[in-house]
Amino acid sequence: MEKLEMLYEGKAKKVYKTAQEDVYIVDYKDDATAFNGLKKGTIVGKGVINNRMSNHMFKLLENEGVPTHYIEELSDRETAVKKVEIVPLEVIIRNVSAGSFSKKLGMEEGIKLLAPTLEFSYKNDDLGDPMINDYYAIALGLATREEIDKISKMAFKVNEVLCKYFEECGIELIDFKIEFGRSKGEVILADEISPDTCRLWDIRTHEKLDKDRFRRDMGGVEDAYAEVLKRIGLA
Amino acid sequence: MEKLEMLYEGKAKKVYKTAQEDVYIVDYKDDATAFNGLKKGTIVGKGVINNRMSNHMFKLLENEGVPTHYIEELSDRETAVKKVEIVPLEVIIRNVSAGSFSKKLGMEEGIKLLAPTLEFSYKNDDLGDPMINDYYAIALGLATREEIDKISKMAFKVNEVLCKYFEECGIELIDFKIEFGRSKGEVILADEISPDTCRLWDIRTHEKLDKDRFRRDMGGVEDAYAEVLKRIGLA
Ligand SMILES: Nc1ncnc2c1ncn2[C@@H]1O[C@H](COP(=O)(O)OP(=O)(O)O)[C@@H](O)[C@H]1O
Ligand SMILES: Nc1ncnc2c1ncn2[C@@H]1O[C@H](COP(=O)(O)OP(=O)(O)O)[C@@H](O)[C@H]1O
Ligand SMILES: [Mg+2]
Ligand SMILES: [Mg+2]
Repeated sequence: MEKLEMLYEGKAKKVYKTAQEDVYIVDYKDDATAFNGLKKGTIVGKGVINNRMSNHMFKLLENEGVPTHYIEELSDRETAVKKVEIVPLEVIIRNVSAGSFSKKLGMEEGIKLLAPTLEFSYKNDDLGDPMINDYYAIALGLATREEIDKISKMAFKVNEVLCKYFEECGIELIDFKIEFGRSKGEVILADEISPDTCRLWDIRTHEKLDKDRFRRDMGGVEDAYAEVLKRIGLA
Repeated sequence: MEKLEMLYEGKAKKVYKTAQEDVYIVDYKDDATAFNGLKKGTIVGKGVINNRMSNHMFKLLENEGVPTHYIEELSDRETAVKKVEIVPLEVIIRNVSAGSFSKKLGMEEGIKLLAPTLEFSYKNDDLGDPMINDYYAIALGLATREEIDKISKMAFKVNEVLCKYFEECGIELIDFKIEFGRSKGEVILADEISPDTCRLWDIRTHEKLDKDRFRRDMGGVEDAYAEVLKRIGLA
C-alpha cells in the first residue's frame, strides 16, 4: 500500500490518503509537544514505539470486542487504518489522580479514585482543548446523545481491558486520552494508545514511564518509552 | 420564629439555627461579590429583593412538583427554610451562550443553544469552584449516582418551569445556578433563585437585568434588580 496526498499533519502523526477511498496511512513522528504546543521537542524513536504499541493495543482491544481503526502495520512508523471522521472530543479516563485533575482539585497525584472517571475535552487547539461535558457536546453539535453514550461505554471497556493488560506487565494505568471516529455509520476507536496518551507508572516504584517525563523535564524520556515497549513484550 | 446561633455567613446570606432542630433561618444581605470574592461591593436593597423573589420562585416550583427548602417568609430579608446538608455542587443550566461558557468556547454571548446544557461546579471557594462532571463528583464522594440523576432531572424541570414563567414576564432566562441539599433522605432544591444566580435579559431589547451589571461595572444595578421584582409582580 502506498501513501498518496498528505491530508493533515498533526503534532505527533501525519495522515495520508491511499488508493483505497476508505483507508488512510498514519505515519508516526518523533516530534513531541506539550501544553498545547507551547513546549516543543523530539523524543528519538518515539514514532516507532508509539506505532508498534498502538497497533498492539488496538489488536488486543479488537479481540475484546472494541471496534478500532486498525487495519495493518506497514512499517516501523506506518500503519494502514480505516478512514474516520474524528469526533472532536478527547475522551479521558482516570483511575488515579494526576495532571490537570490533581491541579484543578488541589489533590496530590497518585490517589486511587473511588471509581474511574470519564470526561470530555473539546478537541480544539485554538481554545486549548477545554474540558466540556456531554450536554455541551450535544449543544455544540459535536456529537449526538447516541454517539456520546456509545463512546462512554466503549471508553470504560477500553479502560477495563487496558488496566488488566498493563497490570500483568507491571504497569499501573493512571489515566489516558482516546479519540473516536465515525466510519460507515459506526463509531470506532481511532488515533493512538501510547506513552504520549497514557499515564503509565511502574506498579511497584510508581516511576513515571510516559510523556510526563518530557512535560516536566525529568530526563530519561527515551528510556521510559523503550521500557514500556519491553514490558508489553514488543522489544 | 426566632434566630438563634449564626451557623455560617456566606457571601450573600447568613444562616441561623432556630429552636426547631430541622429549621434554619436565612437572612439575605446587600453584599455583592464576584470573581470568587475578588470584587466586592454593595447592591442597596438586593437582600430584600432576593429574599422575596427566591420565595416566590420556590412556591411556584413547589406547585410544579419540585421539592424545595422553603417554609415561610418571616420578614423582608428573613425566611424559614428546611435545614439541609448542601450537596457541594453548583448546578448550572444554560439556554443561551454567556459568561464562562462563551469565554471557554470562544462563542459570542446570546446564541441560543441547540439544547439546554447542565454542568456541575465543585462548590469550593479555595479551588475557585472548578467545573467538574458527574464522574468527578462520584469519584470525590461529593454525591452518589442516584443523587446526581435526581438532581439533574430536577434541574431540567426547574429550567422548564422558570423559562416559561420568566417569558410571560418579558424576561429571557439565559442561564442559572442552583444548589440542592439532603433533607430526611431526600434531595431538595435549596439556596436561592435571584438576579444574583440567574442571567435574566429583557426578552425584546436583551438588556441585562442581573448581576452581570455589577460584575461588568455597567451601572444601573439596583434598577435592574428592582425591574425584575416588578416584572414578576412583586412590586
Ligand atoms: N483513522 C483516522 N482517520 C482520520 N483521522 C485520524 C484517524 N486517526 C487519527 N486521526 C487524526 O489524525 C490527526 C493527527 O494525529 P496527531 O498528530 O496525534 O494530531 P494532534 O495534533 O491533533 O494530536 C489527529 O487530528 C487525529 O484525530
Ligand atoms: N436550606 C439550607 N440549609 C443549609 N444551608 C443552606 C440552605 N440553603 C442555602 N444554604 C447555604 O447557605 C450558605 C450561605 O449562602 P450564600 O451567602 O449564598 O453562600 P456562598 O458564599 O456559598 O454563595 C451557602 O453555603 C448555601 O449553600
Ligand atoms: Mg494526537
Ligand atoms: Mg451563594
